[in-house]
This record gives sequence, structure tokens and C-alpha cells, in this order.
Amino acid sequence: MQVRKDGVAAGGLTLSMREFEYDLGEDFDTADITADVAAAVAASGVHTGTATVFIPGATGAVTCLEYEPGVIADFRRAIERLAPRDDHYDHNVRMDDGNGHSHVRAGLLGPSMAVPVVGGRLTLGTWQQIVLVNFDNRPRRRRVAVQIVGV
Amino acid sequence: MQVRKDGVAAGGLTLSMREFEYDLGEDFDTADITADVAAAVAASGVHTGTATVFIPGATGAVTCLEYEPGVIADFRRAIERLAPRDDHYDHNVRMDDGNGHSHVRAGLLGPSMAVPVVGGRLTLGTWQQIVLVNFDNRPRRRRVAVQIVGV
Amino acid sequence: MQVRKDGVAAGGLTLSMREFEYDLGEDFDTADITADVAAAVAASGVHTGTATVFIPGATGAVTCLEYEPGVIADFRRAIERLAPRDDHYDHNVRMDDGNGHSHVRAGLLGPSMAVPVVGGRLTLGTWQQIVLVNFDNRPRRRRVAVQIVGV
Repeated sequence: MQVRKDGVAAGGLTLSMREFEYDLGEDFDTADITADVAAAVAASGVHTGTATVFIPGATGAVTCLEYEPGVIADFRRAIERLAPRDDHYDHNVRMDDGNGHSHVRAGLLGPSMAVPVVGGRLTLGTWQQIVLVNFDNRPRRRRVAVQIVGV
Repeated sequence: MQVRKDGVAAGGLTLSMREFEYDLGEDFDTADITADVAAAVAASGVHTGTATVFIPGATGAVTCLEYEPGVIADFRRAIERLAPRDDHYDHNVRMDDGNGHSHVRAGLLGPSMAVPVVGGRLTLGTWQQIVLVNFDNRPRRRRVAVQIVGV
Repeated sequence: MQVRKDGVAAGGLTLSMREFEYDLGEDFDTADITADVAAAVAASGVHTGTATVFIPGATGAVTCLEYEPGVIADFRRAIERLAPRDDHYDHNVRMDDGNGHSHVRAGLLGPSMAVPVVGGRLTLGTWQQIVLVNFDNRPRRRRVAVQIVGV
């Protein structure tokens, strides 16, 4: 769901910011946000430039995956091995939110990605989708900021 | 090998896109693409700005490493521990391409990187190279999109 | 500590580069660099755009984490599992600097991040900080390049 748009132009350059929100479940839920990012690029009118995708919040992340259930399940298992939910986390001793594993997972994956725009389109491969991940241990309405710079 | 170039200018700004291709072997083969990215920056004439490097395709990735055989072998072993080839992958049950591990590895590493350009040069450290990785389980001609924005 | 600033303007666009340095200890020491990146954005005068953060050097990295001691300790343990210091590293056989684990860790995390700027502010979440990590096996003065593009 698009929740915000903003744009400016200067000397032929366009900067366009769109913000989307997605309701995701707890402990590794995902959304394929490719269509929304592509729509933001189309709406910006930018032909040549770069789209930056950023996830505000310390328990969310973004990456690219083939968005089919097998890959998503496989990726989830790999992430769970990296930072198992039931390990000891100092964060859980200091805070009472119990999401130490969520923070570690998000930090390993990272919150940002940049995709070139050429001919008005993202330069993604055929089977390559932009995937938002909620690592938090509770359902979250996650925001996605998409910033497009170009001409 | 450079396969495409495209550029526009607006109000003093330059946007330059170059695309390169590399023939890589199966299951973790790498290429040091630093010289090509640097050449793209030089050819763009951009003095101050940002170079975005993006790998189209769901089984490729980019990162920075010291490009010497020891580090590359060490990095390969770490990646193989993260997502062993012989584990169970749901993707391999659903599809017949057998590259479930390739998808997980690429998703963990990520397809993009952004490097500032200052004084017409990438702000890389002395021993820091931009490295393309093919994780697919078959040889691939991998594309690299380099988008330079600046003045 | 800010060590360098540089900026240009073209057709209403601003490009601003700031470089910071941080003295960090060996084998996983961290710095919260959020305030410095935010100050660089404020000083640039950019209202809408993108801030790219890049760590020159093959044994440093940047990510986002909630910067509290529990999360930092948890993240350190996860990283140490990914590439234990005492494993065999080919790099350590070929070179005499003994930091094979540092190279692998930095390559897994990556050297760059891009954060949108909206209303003159980084679009970070409340508990989300930009964190520099020194993975090297000796104390390092680490540089951070911050490139801001926008209007």
C-alpha cells in the first residue's frame, strides 16, 4: 500500500520518494515488493537513474530472491541457522521484547539496496524479485522507502 | 567485456550506464571487476558522485574482497558453510534446476553496492576490490550494470 | 572526527562528500556513526536525496543495528560463528598478517549502505543506527566516506 509520495525536480533532474507499507507476520514473513518499486519508477518519469530501497526499522531487511515458495522456505532455514531463535541473546536479558535473534538477522542482511533504472525499468533479472523481510518476533506494519534519482 | 553504454546529461549532471559481461564457471566462480568499474567512472567524466554496481539475476552477487587466491578460497568455504550444496532445498523439489543453494547464497550476500566517486576515482581502499560472484550451479555469462550519477 | 569535506552544485543539485575517521580496536570493534552521517546531511543542505555510506578498506563493514550493548554482543557472536578466528584460512598461509577471518567477515557484511533523505533527515527507524565495524585483527583508524546527492 502506498502511503506517501513526494517529488522535486531541479535542472532536469527528478528526485522522487515513495513510501509503502506492508502488514507482515512474525519471525520471518516476506513480501514481494518488486511491482510497487517498479510502479514508483514508472510514476516518477525517470528514464535513467537509480532506485534506492530502504527499510526503516532495526528488525527488517531487504534483499533479492526468486520469489517462489521453495526459495523462501530455503532462505528462512538458512537465516534460522545463522541466528537461531532459541540461542542466548544479551539483548533479551537487557530488554523485555525477546527479539534478540531478529536484530542479529536484520543486521546480517542489511536494510538497503540500490537498483539501476535504464529505459524507465529496473535492471532486474527475469527471476529476481525485491523482497522485504520482517524478522521481528511480532507482526509488524513495515515501511519501505523508495528514492528514485535520475532524468 | 563491455556490452553496452548509455549516458545522459541534465543541468550539469551526468548519468552514465555501462553494462559488462563476464563468463564465469559454476558454483562459486569470481571475477575482479574493479578495473571495469573504474574505467566506467573515468569514461563518464564524473568527478564527484556515486557508482552503483548491480548484478541482474537471482544467483549472482557482488561484494568487496581483497582479490587474492587465499581470501577467495576462504570466502568460498564460509559461503559453503552458510548454505551447503548437499542440504535439502525445497526449491530443488519444486524445480528441476538443482540450484537451491545458489539462490540462498545470492540472497544472503545481495546484488548491489554503492561506491562514492571523489576526484574522478572510486573511494576504495588499497586492498579492496569489487568482486562479482556466480553462485549458480552451471557456467553463466553474468551481466553487471554500473550506473554513475554525478558531476 | 570529520577529516574532509567537499561539495559541488550543478543545476540545483547538490553533491556533498564528507569523510570521517574513527579509531577502533581489533577484532570486532564498533562505532555508532549515525550522528555524523546526519550532521553531514544537515550540513549539505540537501532536503531530498540519498546518502551513501561506504567503508574504504577490505576489513571494515557497515550495517544497521540497534546500538545497545546487548545487540552488539549478540551480533559479534553471530559473526564469530560465521568465520571463527581460529579456523584455517588460506590467506594466513599466503600472507603474514593473520587476518583471514577479518577478510571473510567483511566480505559477508559488505562495505556500503544507501539511506534516503527526506525533509532533510535520514529515513532511519527510531531504534536503527548506522554502525561501522572494524573486523581487522589490529586497531585501525577507519575511514568512512559519506556521499550525499540531492536537492
